[in-house]
Amino acid sequence: MRAAVEGVIRVVVGGITQPRGFSAAGVACGIKRRQAGAPPALDLALIVADAPVPAAAVFTTNRAVASPVIVSRENLARSGGRVKAIVTNSGCANAATGAAGMRIAREMAEIAGDAVSCPPEQVLVASTGVIGVPLDIEKIRAGVGAAAGVLSVDGGDAAALAIMTTDPFPKSIAAVLELPEGTLTVGGMAKGSGMIEPRMATMLGYLTTDARVEPAVLAGALRRVVDLTFNAITVDGECSTNDSVFALASGESSVAITRDDDPRLIEPMLAVAGHLAREIVRGGEGATKLITVRVTGAASHTDAWLAARTIANSPLVKTAIHGGDPNWGRLIVAAGRSGAAFELTHASVAIGDVPLFVRGVPHDDRSDAAATVLQEATVTVSVDLGTGGSHDATMWTCDFSAEYVRINAEYRT
Amino acid sequence: MRAAVEGVIRVVVGGITQPRGFSAAGVACGIKRRQAGAPPALDLALIVADAPVPAAAVFTTNRAVASPVIVSRENLARSGGRVKAIVTNSGCANAATGAAGMRIAREMAEIAGDAVSCPPEQVLVASTGVIGVPLDIEKIRAGVGAAAGVLSVDGGDAAALAIMTTDPFPKSIAAVLELPEGTLTVGGMAKGSGMIEPRMATMLGYLTTDARVEPAVLAGALRRVVDLTFNAITVDGECSTNDSVFALASGESSVAITRDDDPRLIEPMLAVAGHLAREIVRGGEGATKLITVRVTGAASHTDAWLAARTIANSPLVKTAIHGGDPNWGRLIVAAGRSGAAFELTHASVAIGDVPLFVRGVPHDDRSDAAATVLQEATVTVSVDLGTGGSHDATMWTCDFSAEYVRINAEYRT
Repeated sequence: MRAAVEGVIRVVVGGITQPRGFSAAGVACGIKRRQAGAPPALDLALIVADAPVPAAAVFTTNRAVASPVIVSRENLARSGGRVKAIVTNSGCANAATGAAGMRIAREMAEIAGDAVSCPPEQVLVASTGVIGVPLDIEKIRAGVGAAAGVLSVDGGDAAALAIMTTDPFPKSIAAVLELPEGTLTVGGMAKGSGMIEPRMATMLGYLTTDARVEPAVLAGALRRVVDLTFNAITVDGECSTNDSVFALASGESSVAITRDDDPRLIEPMLAVAGHLAREIVRGGEGATKLITVRVTGAASHTDAWLAARTIANSPLVKTAIHGGDPNWGRLIVAAGRSGAAFELTHASVAIGDVPLFVRGVPHDDRSDAAATVLQEATVTVSVDLGTGGSHDATMWTCDFSAEYVRINAEYRT
Repeated sequence: MRAAVEGVIRVVVGGITQPRGFSAAGVACGIKRRQAGAPPALDLALIVADAPVPAAAVFTTNRAVASPVIVSRENLARSGGRVKAIVTNSGCANAATGAAGMRIAREMAEIAGDAVSCPPEQVLVASTGVIGVPLDIEKIRAGVGAAAGVLSVDGGDAAALAIMTTDPFPKSIAAVLELPEGTLTVGGMAKGSGMIEPRMATMLGYLTTDARVEPAVLAGALRRVVDLTFNAITVDGECSTNDSVFALASGESSVAITRDDDPRLIEPMLAVAGHLAREIVRGGEGATKLITVRVTGAASHTDAWLAARTIANSPLVKTAIHGGDPNWGRLIVAAGRSGAAFELTHASVAIGDVPLFVRGVPHDDRSDAAATVLQEATVTVSVDLGTGGSHDATMWTCDFSAEYVRINAEYRT
């Protein structure tokens, strides 16, 4: 249960430069291939705080970790969680590139540090794109120079474009919380797990806020927020070598946060990160529907997430929903094999608000009503595990289309 | 490491009635819908031993368990592992059918017991087909009567047809081991995880042998064999409410087995079960390639299987192979996210005998050679996890095609 916030959160058009204290830029430095007839694609983003500020990050759990992730983790530790800039390139992941890749990731931090006048450990780095290909540091050097020259408090949109790989659209948003003690703003941008270009699978998220908060508290809040947003989505169950979510807090607001569960910070962060995470799913490869998977009646927190994740990644569930088939049996089978405690004779399944299986009894006479629900672009499926437990979980996923297979089966070379 | 067998195993055309001591039949009883213009589809199989014989079974790990699984498990316990018959229907899974489903599964055992003159606890039952639909016990009664009247030592082929649901072909095989002390025969049949008909996902396997073996030893041997065969395949990571593998041993051979790791029993069982398991994959929905996933260099047995299973179920790996794309990055990413210990800088990947990533270094100049390998209908991909460990695992899977999506997205009603 989350505490309620004593104020109104307004979700507004905006991005990472919405909170005071940040500027950004997105430029083209030639790492992405240029499409015939098109202008050069933006492929380098720079986010800069007016001064070194509290920072936190959550990184991929994949054991195959790319060099920029290793360097960012090191720099966060070395700087005591105080960072001035984040530099990101798209088009090349700098992953599976060995010792040379580590040197290049470190040099990327040095170059950005020089450009914004801070030591390299106050820079975080991120890369997204093809795996196993060397990153051209000279292009990075030119790109950072160009970006530093055009940093602006209106630069959030360009930065959001520059981090994209195969995303069908850029993803930015901001939330403003008005409180008696002042205004707190959170901005964010993200790129998705579009894997049209082979060997790409990276999700990157960036949250900025003007809250006054220490690094350790920001890190705790980010962890809480990521668990309920970026870690609660799936397109195909893959997680990449480069996945990272960053948070920076400028302290320009008069609102001071001293606990990592303070709803004044958590709720606007959830609004921003939740929107971005759902946009990533909506932009998933071949996706035609945004599906909310709601699991209730779980015996434990772990069980609730296990069942939700298994359902959200089940090819049979995702193809059935793609086809508009209210096939509750596939939801039962996925929940049953998830490893979560499950009681078939007490379990229930609903599609939208149509109960199709209620405490172990099928109601196939309601199939037509459920099929109508499945025509919508956003669909909720609910499974009660029937254990009588009070734990629940909510995940977001997309349907599974022949287009997904076509995109991912296309020959790379 | 498995001990070698001191004799020659011949794999022969045959099935469950190949070993002495068994008869079988497959009949049509009207549970499967009849296709226009076609003869009635076989949908009831009866396997009968000449007398009650040692029996064993391995059942689904899905927590949503169908009634026939519960009844078979009970009957194996009640009979002390001595069984005279196995009765199977296709077209209806008798799953998610509540208390009525349990009564019907028990009645199915009683009817078959009456027909072959044994108590109901000496009968095992299996059902495969649509979930959530009541099974018509009168059709079962008529079918068992008809089958009992045509039992034959040549009935294996008809039984293999009668257990099919949407399998594209029947699956039967036998293996004969010639030893100085006598001849030992193993026969088998299976049905696959074809899920063309929605809510169908059941794998059923049946092994018969003339070995002289006690129930506990047979159970141990079956467990070992299933782990390396039926449990080492995947089509889409789903496991059903009804999955079951049965073994019956008539004792008609002069070869006596007293240890569950005796290669004289294990090796011919592996030959039969391995063939059937790979045939299930080959008959997977929309499958165009049989893929062997080989994992080496794992730090533990569990890690080897975890990595192999994650790779074998990865949509990105399965679509890349479908498209003939030698995308070693996707194999690395899947291994890295599996949870198994993994050292990127020491890991290696090969497609067929073409090493594409060797101890952390890409060899993309070999992509064309690997792409040629991927044109074959059977493909081996090998991943060394780079931990220096000595554990390994082999799984079989199929590629992931747009046809899979089409089949599974078709509207059910």
